[in-house]
Amino acid sequence: MTPAPHVVALGGGHGLYASLTALRGRCEVLTAVVTVADDGGSSGRIRAEMPVPPPGDLRMALSALCEDTDWGRTWRDVLQWRFATTGPLDGHAVGNLLIAGLWDRTGGIVEGLDWVARLLRCEGRVLPVSTEPIVVSAHVEGRDGVLRRVEGQVAVATAQGRVRDLAVSPADPAVPAATLEAIADADAVILGPGSWYTSVLTHFLVPRVAEALVAAGGRTILTLNIAHEDEETAGTDRVDDVAVLRAAAPGFVPAAVLADATHDEPRLRAAVEDWGARFVVAPMRADDAVDRHDVGRLGEQYAQLLAEVAAGGSAMRR
Amino acid sequence: MTPAPHVVALGGGHGLYASLTALRGRCEVLTAVVTVADDGGSSGRIRAEMPVPPPGDLRMALSALCEDTDWGRTWRDVLQWRFATTGPLDGHAVGNLLIAGLWDRTGGIVEGLDWVARLLRCEGRVLPVSTEPIVVSAHVEGRDGVLRRVEGQVAVATAQGRVRDLAVSPADPAVPAATLEAIADADAVILGPGSWYTSVLTHFLVPRVAEALVAAGGRTILTLNIAHEDEETAGTDRVDDVAVLRAAAPGFVPAAVLADATHDEPRLRAAVEDWGARFVVAPMRADDAVDRHDVGRLGEQYAQLLAEVAAGGSAMRR
Repeated sequence: MTPAPHVVALGGGHGLYASLTALRGRCEVLTAVVTVADDGGSSGRIRAEMPVPPPGDLRMALSALCEDTDWGRTWRDVLQWRFATTGPLDGHAVGNLLIAGLWDRTGGIVEGLDWVARLLRCEGRVLPVSTEPIVVSAHVEGRDGVLRRVEGQVAVATAQGRVRDLAVSPADPAVPAATLEAIADADAVILGPGSWYTSVLTHFLVPRVAEALVAAGGRTILTLNIAHEDEETAGTDRVDDVAVLRAAAPGFVPAAVLADATHDEPRLRAAVEDWGARFVVAPMRADDAVDRHDVGRLGEQYAQLLAEVAAGGSAMRR
Repeated sequence: MTPAPHVVALGGGHGLYASLTALRGRCEVLTAVVTVADDGGSSGRIRAEMPVPPPGDLRMALSALCEDTDWGRTWRDVLQWRFATTGPLDGHAVGNLLIAGLWDRTGGIVEGLDWVARLLRCEGRVLPVSTEPIVVSAHVEGRDGVLRRVEGQVAVATAQGRVRDLAVSPADPAVPAATLEAIADADAVILGPGSWYTSVLTHFLVPRVAEALVAAGGRTILTLNIAHEDEETAGTDRVDDVAVLRAAAPGFVPAAVLADATHDEPRLRAAVEDWGARFVVAPMRADDAVDRHDVGRLGEQYAQLLAEVAAGGSAMRR
C-alpha cells in the first residue's frame, strides 16, 4: 500500500490524540493543527501568566507523536504528568511547562513548538491554529428555553443546554503561514473525532483556516464521534452534528464522513449524502469502552482512505 | 592515552559544571555527585513546595553532560532557561521543573535523575550527595570579631566575614547506595573547583560520604579555585582553604592537589606536601577572565593525571 505523503490532522484534546495515534506510521509526513482555546487548569493558568496560547492541546498532540520506544513512551508520559503539590506548581502538566519554556526562550510560537518536537524526537509536526490565544463564547439554550451567553472553552464545554452559536475572539486571529501551508499542501486532511464545538467547529471560526479548509474539502475526511454523551452535544445526535458543522462552514464539503458501523442509520447517511460527501461506515469502537474509537481500527480506515488518495487524488470522493 | 574507566566528580554549581565539561570525553564512565543544600531562587521554592532536594545543582550537572550536538546543546540551554513572567513561574529554571516532575512521577530521587539523564541522552550519571534536602549553617566571624550563626546556603555563601564552622542538618542525611558505590568504585575522584564551603567542604559534613572520600583519598584530585573573591572566602587565601578542608575532613588525604601556575607559592606547596599530597601546578586560567578555569586546560591536566591512574593506580601519588 502506498502511504499518503502528507496528512494534516486537525482537532484538540483526546480526539486529536486518537487520530494522530491512528495515523502514525500510515503517512510519510504527519502534521497536527491544534485548537488554542483552552482556558482551564494548567493551560488556563499559563495563558493568564504569559502572553502565549494555552499549551495543553498542543502538548497532547506532541505526546501522541512521541516515538514508540521505551524512551519515547516515557517522554509521552512525562509530558502528560501533572504535579501534585501544595503550592503553585500543583496541577501543571510537565509538558505544558516545557512548551511554555521554549516559547519564552525562542520568542516564537511555531519556532518553540518545532524545537519541542525536535527535542522529543516527535514523529510529526505540531502547529497551532493561531499564534494568539483564542477565547470561544457561545449562546447556550437551557431546558427553560432561555439563551445564556457563556465565555471560555471550559464554560462552553460544560454548559447545560444546546449550543446555539459559537464565536471566537479575536474574530480574525493571526494564523501561522506554516499552518495554512500545511493544509494547502496536504494530500489528505483529517478532521475529528473530538469535542464537536470546541475541537472541531472552532477551526471554521478562524476565517483564514476556514478558507483553507473549504479549499481542502475534497481531500478531507471528517470523523464523527462515537461518544455523544458530553454536555456540549447533550440532547442532539450525529445528524445534528453534521447540520451544525455544515451551517458553521459554508462552502465546505468533506470528501468522506467516517462513522462507526453502529451509526449506519438512514437519516445520517441521507444528511451526509445531501451535503455531497461519501458516507463511510466501519466497525471502529473500542472493545473495552463503548464511548471511544479503537485507534487500531480507526487507523485501518484511515489507511484505506489514504491509499485511495495516494492512488489518485479525487478517488476519495465516490 | 588510555582513558580512565570511571571518574566521579563531586561539587555543585558552576565549579562542578566546569569539572564535568573538562572531564567529558576523557573517561569511559563519568558520574557527578552533587550537593543538595541550595535554598535560593527556583530550587529554594521547589524544596519548599515539595519534599525533595533542591534540583538546581543537579540540573547544572545534567546540562554539563548534554551531548555536544545541536540537539544536546539546545537541551543544555533549555534546562538552564529561566522563565521571565509576572506570575508564579517567574525565575523557575525549565530543567528544575523537569527534574521535579520526574521526581514527582517516579517517587524516587535517584530513579528520577536517572530518567532525566536518559531522556536527555546525557553522557554520564548525576547522583545527589543525599536524597534528603540538606540545610547548611555556619558561624561567621564579622569584621567586628563577633560570631553570628547563619543558616541556609545562600546566607552562608553571602555572609560578610570568615566562616568559622559549618554544619549540615540533618546531621546524618540519607545517602543513596549508588552514590557510595560510585565513589568506592571510581578509578579517580575529582573534588573542586567550586564554592569552597558550600560545594566542596559540605561533602565531608555528610558522614557516610566523608567516610567514602577518606577511603578514596589515594585516588582523589583536589582542584583549588582560581577565583578567591567571593564572600565565602574573603580575607583568606588558598593556604587557608587547604587548612579548613584538612580540619573538616580528618583522615582524608588527596593524592594530588591541582593549582593554577600563578599560585605556585612556597607556602601553598608546603601546606599541600605537609598534608601528604602531591602539589601539581599548571597554567589553567581562562584567557577571557581572570577568575576561572579554562575548561580545555583543566581537562588536559585531568587527562594527564587520569592517565597515570590508568597506568597503575597509585602512580598518581608522587
